[in-house]
Amino acid sequence: MATTLLKISCPDQVGLLSKLSGFVAQHGGNLLEVHQFTDERSGWFFARMAVETETLSVGIGELRAAFEPIGSGLRADWTIRAAESRMKVVLMVSRLGHCLADLLWRWRCGELAFDIACVVSNHEDFRAMVEREGLEFRHVPIDSARKEAGFAQLGAVFEEVRPDLIVLARYMQVLPDTLCAAYPGRIMNIHHSFLPSFVGANPYQRAWERGVKLIGATCHYATADLDQGPIIDQEVTRVEHFHSPEDLVRIGRDCERLALARSVRWHLGGRVFVSGNRTIVLRD
Amino acid sequence: MATTLLKISCPDQVGLLSKLSGFVAQHGGNLLEVHQFTDERSGWFFARMAVETETLSVGIGELRAAFEPIGSGLRADWTIRAAESRMKVVLMVSRLGHCLADLLWRWRCGELAFDIACVVSNHEDFRAMVEREGLEFRHVPIDSARKEAGFAQLGAVFEEVRPDLIVLARYMQVLPDTLCAAYPGRIMNIHHSFLPSFVGANPYQRAWERGVKLIGATCHYATADLDQGPIIDQEVTRVEHFHSPEDLVRIGRDCERLALARSVRWHLGGRVFVSGNRTIVLRD
Amino acid sequence: MATTLLKISCPDQVGLLSKLSGFVAQHGGNLLEVHQFTDERSGWFFARMAVETETLSVGIGELRAAFEPIGSGLRADWTIRAAESRMKVVLMVSRLGHCLADLLWRWRCGELAFDIACVVSNHEDFRAMVEREGLEFRHVPIDSARKEAGFAQLGAVFEEVRPDLIVLARYMQVLPDTLCAAYPGRIMNIHHSFLPSFVGANPYQRAWERGVKLIGATCHYATADLDQGPIIDQEVTRVEHFHSPEDLVRIGRDCERLALARSVRWHLGGRVFVSGNRTIVLRD
Amino acid sequence: MATTLLKISCPDQVGLLSKLSGFVAQHGGNLLEVHQFTDERSGWFFARMAVETETLSVGIGELRAAFEPIGSGLRADWTIRAAESRMKVVLMVSRLGHCLADLLWRWRCGELAFDIACVVSNHEDFRAMVEREGLEFRHVPIDSARKEAGFAQLGAVFEEVRPDLIVLARYMQVLPDTLCAAYPGRIMNIHHSFLPSFVGANPYQRAWERGVKLIGATCHYATADLDQGPIIDQEVTRVEHFHSPEDLVRIGRDCERLALARSVRWHLGGRVFVSGNRTIVLRD
Repeated sequence: MATTLLKISCPDQVGLLSKLSGFVAQHGGNLLEVHQFTDERSGWFFARMAVETETLSVGIGELRAAFEPIGSGLRADWTIRAAESRMKVVLMVSRLGHCLADLLWRWRCGELAFDIACVVSNHEDFRAMVEREGLEFRHVPIDSARKEAGFAQLGAVFEEVRPDLIVLARYMQVLPDTLCAAYPGRIMNIHHSFLPSFVGANPYQRAWERGVKLIGATCHYATADLDQGPIIDQEVTRVEHFHSPEDLVRIGRDCERLALARSVRWHLGGRVFVSGNRTIVLRD
Repeated sequence: MATTLLKISCPDQVGLLSKLSGFVAQHGGNLLEVHQFTDERSGWFFARMAVETETLSVGIGELRAAFEPIGSGLRADWTIRAAESRMKVVLMVSRLGHCLADLLWRWRCGELAFDIACVVSNHEDFRAMVEREGLEFRHVPIDSARKEAGFAQLGAVFEEVRPDLIVLARYMQVLPDTLCAAYPGRIMNIHHSFLPSFVGANPYQRAWERGVKLIGATCHYATADLDQGPIIDQEVTRVEHFHSPEDLVRIGRDCERLALARSVRWHLGGRVFVSGNRTIVLRD
Repeated sequence: MATTLLKISCPDQVGLLSKLSGFVAQHGGNLLEVHQFTDERSGWFFARMAVETETLSVGIGELRAAFEPIGSGLRADWTIRAAESRMKVVLMVSRLGHCLADLLWRWRCGELAFDIACVVSNHEDFRAMVEREGLEFRHVPIDSARKEAGFAQLGAVFEEVRPDLIVLARYMQVLPDTLCAAYPGRIMNIHHSFLPSFVGANPYQRAWERGVKLIGATCHYATADLDQGPIIDQEVTRVEHFHSPEDLVRIGRDCERLALARSVRWHLGGRVFVSGNRTIVLRD
Repeated sequence: MATTLLKISCPDQVGLLSKLSGFVAQHGGNLLEVHQFTDERSGWFFARMAVETETLSVGIGELRAAFEPIGSGLRADWTIRAAESRMKVVLMVSRLGHCLADLLWRWRCGELAFDIACVVSNHEDFRAMVEREGLEFRHVPIDSARKEAGFAQLGAVFEEVRPDLIVLARYMQVLPDTLCAAYPGRIMNIHHSFLPSFVGANPYQRAWERGVKLIGATCHYATADLDQGPIIDQEVTRVEHFHSPEDLVRIGRDCERLALARSVRWHLGGRVFVSGNRTIVLRD
């Protein structure tokens, strides 16, 4: 059934949920799903309400207009949107294609509902894999001698496309601060370790050297600080002494795929809030 | 801080959450935590609201009285109680003491807050272990030749104690239907397999014979049908071909402990609803 | 480095490992990896030895000839083969393509090293997906009115191809006993539940109805008894009350993919022994 | 059945396993369990052989004497001991008793077979808990003003007891280098984070601040570098945004208990080898 999503975060106060659910009820809305979380430490309130669209007495534009004064009064960060509206996504990859292949498969079979504006890579390796899906592949080389030019071109692609989400699906370049800052909470990266262990390069090799008994992957929003952004999801798996660094790479790929796919799903569903350097994830 | 809990389940209707949160707001209550779930299949609504007691304008008795007509109008099953009130629990065990020892330790260190009315066993094995904690140990033998008499005595203990929860912590007797029926949703059993696999006796031996690669434990409310009651929690762990049936017993003990401890915690916190043969668990 | 694999199972006796490792040493072989397991219950011995091929003083044919009398003397089931020789595999699928897509991806990127003789399906849905990989797709319809004819055609395909492994990658037809019996330990099935829970049809729906808190998948060798064959691997994941049967299907897909991919890997690597209705899996 | 354990590590060479299993066979020994691992990177060989004592033609002293020249020739680090001989263990704790209580329980019920020389603490909190088990409790205060004196006293206890294993079961003092160096591979510590994340103090608080979605515990051998020693086992569990730092502490306790209990078990069973800063764990 068609669903309208109200997503909101604001300073906590007494009666907030009553006010919000009252607003929905007042417009005839049948609540399908409600998630609410109050962070006592920050004094912040987060909620996501899924309303059966057919039961609403007004259209989505009118609903937004009606909520405007309430949102302002609460000094809230809020959106009201149709759950069926598909987000526009840019996928980015370098030379390791497992996360890209996984997302493409979930997209093609309908498990993840989003529109792929284009796939961007600093290499040509996956052009055929992308184009045979009927998707646009854009090669934006990042020449180490002149990275700035490459990133400027990348920025131009983003400005042209205006994506709701940029997924770094094993894109092995560190984005410049300006790009990260321009799309806060909208650039998602999959790091191939169980952060904060093994920040930076070659995490599997370093995990092997440290002799850890579990390896993992971490999906987080990219910020100016490398591998320091808010974590959305993590996945781990047990390894043993007989696993070589190459085995860790192989086994870790499945962790990466799973953590990334779930994070993308939750982002698309409006289920992730950023709160400082943490995330509130209203899982489904 | 002191907390008042409203727990309710009723047929779903438009505006329910608004009505409930409005009721709390109307009495000045600051909502600390709200969980709500609507089961579309059964058309049933479930909610648990944690309210900061100090902010309420009335006492708990008055609050209950004020909610009475609302609850009736909704044909709801509801309770309002102080989160700090401790449930009265009867622990039951036969000859395997790991679950009992685990619960006693969590109780003693304050991780699980409840009052232990007594520990009941059909054997004398754990009398010393129980009594040195300053707890009452009751030996209620279940003689196979005259089980009825034993269960009658057990029923008398329950009637005398009037427990909020009875935990079968590896109590290896099948309770008669009448006892199960007398305490619906209040008798909790830990079964040493990943139900519905290996219902009944000797699950670890049968798991070994079937060659499963994961074993587990299941905590459920006891019903008249053996091992068929609503599942509260499950835990599994990986095993390999080199594990003997005895190894499975040893490894499984940790699964049993964990699944049982979490289930008890959630029951005590008013976080478990029974819905047909399923449970809604508002985890913390 | 090139590797020669000796895989053997036989009745246990004193000095077996000494005899086997002595045989390898006598031919100059450097042991890279040794796994040994003695099942005390059945009195059976299982071993897998990986030898550095370059260090062997004789070719593989001569090595086999030299081992012949030893193997006979031990009444052993044994093989000696080059680890690099690729197994010939038939993949089978019906209308749910996630396991097929996953295996194709792992095959294409080299994670799983095997030759795909063909993909067989009782439907046409995945012809394009298969053929664009340059693989042969064979449509063998199984008409419910005349299943025998369909299975006879399937048997003919197997006889023509002579596969080392047949993977039922969500092939939704029950193979007749004769086919199962003709390829013992060489037909692998992925069942979409945590066996022995939910044998047979619609396991996710039944898992939802039973209210389990963990769902899973089981990869096993197919035998004449449906879903009763020796289990190779299992995978589970936690679910909650808010997950619908459709959610379980979605979440379960990742369990199926992982359990199947690992099982195929271990089979290809000569790491799985069947022992009665159990498997010995010498994991890597 | 009585079991004799041969544990050995040495530089790798062709024919090693043949030599070792030949030695056992030559003395009539029936091998119950063999584990072997060759670390290609370091060129080191590790093995553990469990032999049925009754089948050996000589006593353990004679067997050791017979192995002496072989071990020397291989420049090996080796032991031969009766599996039934119980290790002498010192348990150490500060003010958090969950790990101690868990080990005591597993010891009392026979799950872990070892002798407890004494329990040492820098506080008096757990004297009663220990003494009621009939165990010796030693209070060795570590006064921050004169730590050296405290650690000297501790060293004297160790010298008196000559333990096979010292378990820091949430002992919240950093041992001086000299003590660590005196008992290499024999001091085991449980750290309350998923190392190498959150080395040092307050890991749960920092895990909460970093917003990780999985928390864990790490058991490792203590070395002069704090939290940097070879890891024996790790355990993780999923957490969510609604878990407070206090919740992480509570949930983490179960991770700590499990990782520590397994590590102790493997150490007692002669299943752990230290190799540089990694461990080889031949799990059971």
